Amino acid sequence: MTGFIPRNPDFENRVRDSFGAQTFMCAIGATITKLEPGAVDLTMDKRVDLCQQHGFIHAGVTTAILDSAAGYAALSLFNPGEDVLTTEFKVNLLRPAEGPRFVARGRVLKPGKTLTVCRSDVFALRDGEDVLVATALLSMIAVAG
Amino acid sequence: MTGFIPRNPDFENRVRDSFGAQTFMCAIGATITKLEPGAVDLTMDKRVDLCQQHGFIHAGVTTAILDSAAGYAALSLFNPGEDVLTTEFKVNLLRPAEGPRFVARGRVLKPGKTLTVCRSDVFALRDGEDVLVATALLSMIAVAG
Amino acid sequence: MTGFIPRNPDFENRVRDSFGAQTFMCAIGATITKLEPGAVDLTMDKRVDLCQQHGFIHAGVTTAILDSAAGYAALSLFNPGEDVLTTEFKVNLLRPAEGPRFVARGRVLKPGKTLTVCRSDVFALRDGEDVLVATALLSMIAVAG
Amino acid sequence: MTGFIPRNPDFENRVRDSFGAQTFMCAIGATITKLEPGAVDLTMDKRVDLCQQHGFIHAGVTTAILDSAAGYAALSLFNPGEDVLTTEFKVNLLRPAEGPRFVARGRVLKPGKTLTVCRSDVFALRDGEDVLVATALLSMIAVAG
Repeated sequence: MTGFIPRNPDFENRVRDSFGAQTFMCAIGATITKLEPGAVDLTMDKRVDLCQQHGFIHAGVTTAILDSAAGYAALSLFNPGEDVLTTEFKVNLLRPAEGPRFVARGRVLKPGKTLTVCRSDVFALRDGEDVLVATALLSMIAVAG
Repeated sequence: MTGFIPRNPDFENRVRDSFGAQTFMCAIGATITKLEPGAVDLTMDKRVDLCQQHGFIHAGVTTAILDSAAGYAALSLFNPGEDVLTTEFKVNLLRPAEGPRFVARGRVLKPGKTLTVCRSDVFALRDGEDVLVATALLSMIAVAG
Repeated sequence: MTGFIPRNPDFENRVRDSFGAQTFMCAIGATITKLEPGAVDLTMDKRVDLCQQHGFIHAGVTTAILDSAAGYAALSLFNPGEDVLTTEFKVNLLRPAEGPRFVARGRVLKPGKTLTVCRSDVFALRDGEDVLVATALLSMIAVAG
Repeated sequence: MTGFIPRNPDFENRVRDSFGAQTFMCAIGATITKLEPGAVDLTMDKRVDLCQQHGFIHAGVTTAILDSAAGYAALSLFNPGEDVLTTEFKVNLLRPAEGPRFVARGRVLKPGKTLTVCRSDVFALRDGEDVLVATALLSMIAVAG
């Protein structure tokens, strides 16, 4: 439980509908594996077409899932009728994104009327262990949607 | 001309070989459209499978091209036998990534023995005008490669 | 000339009054040395009480002048009655902040109704040469003031 | 307990000596209130000469304590004879830095031979409650020192 009270009772459908409209999440095979107020996890499998020059997941793909996870964590707390846009993020790449499966955990740190600040971490799932490969801070803005 | 003197006379092949090994650049259709010491441009067309919920290019894709452009701008100044890894970046998304074609311009701001700091800007090419949609600062590290 | 048209004809007094109320700018001896729409420079001398362990200017002080320079560059473009707050920044420290005098150059990259994105660079003034010691991207928000 | 094993048995004196050489920490009245392997807290009182235009602590001062806290958290894990420099940081200012007393909590997220990544949070201590006012990610580099 995250402790946040959603202002939109239908937040779950709101998030799933918007996520379903992100063609890039479909293209990389990412799915929602957790959806609570202020907390969204996205999970994806490694694929050979999503890599950088050493065969690790490309930082752009890592960023895609951590950004969408954080954006939907924020959107889950917005008013009905509002949409979310990312205004900025900072990502530290801590270890090579190596592994068969990855999960991005987006969490709201500070909700706000205009700006919502999130943290988002990406873990590689290796032999039952979660290895932190990237950590990010992100700002999300609520817009009429 | 960028004013940087490459330490690797074969820097152009070094960059093209590594870029060619990034399967994700191939998957999104990005190509190198400029390659000088300390300066690399990557160009890609809009595609319907690379979008977020409003039909704009997903921030992960924008990040992918600005990160690879900056990484190869850095690699062009490295010693023979060194490879490049991104350690961190910060991206400000200034406008919706809307348009038929996008170019990421990676430039070395400060070369270094261990860390090289780059700027990278993404422009949407609209009716002959370049519209800045994202700007980033990135840190690249030289590793034995 | 910056090309920006200020919405507040009295922007110069607005900026100077607010800057004058920042006790910390007074404490470190920073002064405004350029004030145009969307562009503010702050200059300060090295002082022995503003240093880190090697005798270079502390990153907090470098950040203080680059943040205030950017904030006032943003405020110069705001409506009358609006005030400015920094929501986030990213700073790359490129070289030791060594020298007798420093200037922070805050520039608006993208003005907006709610958020204004700025770049801000700090230079050490050494023997008539400007050496870039830090570069930053910052987000500023307009608030009722 | 942080779970990190220091490589320098004398890490505590190493950190205290270096902190004592930061004249700016002395100037703002910051002191070490926790020092464990990979974890350093710095505490300071509000002072009227450290403020921005609304009478809150200036973001440069907030940054000074979160940066020094993180830097010394990193240094506590370094080898004897190594020193620490900050290469970059990103700070999100979540709430006005208002209160009688502030604590910066620097924590190592990922130690490394060259780069160490830290998180650092600043809390305002208000009526026995800790209010998060800023959160940051920072990169520290080990240098011969």
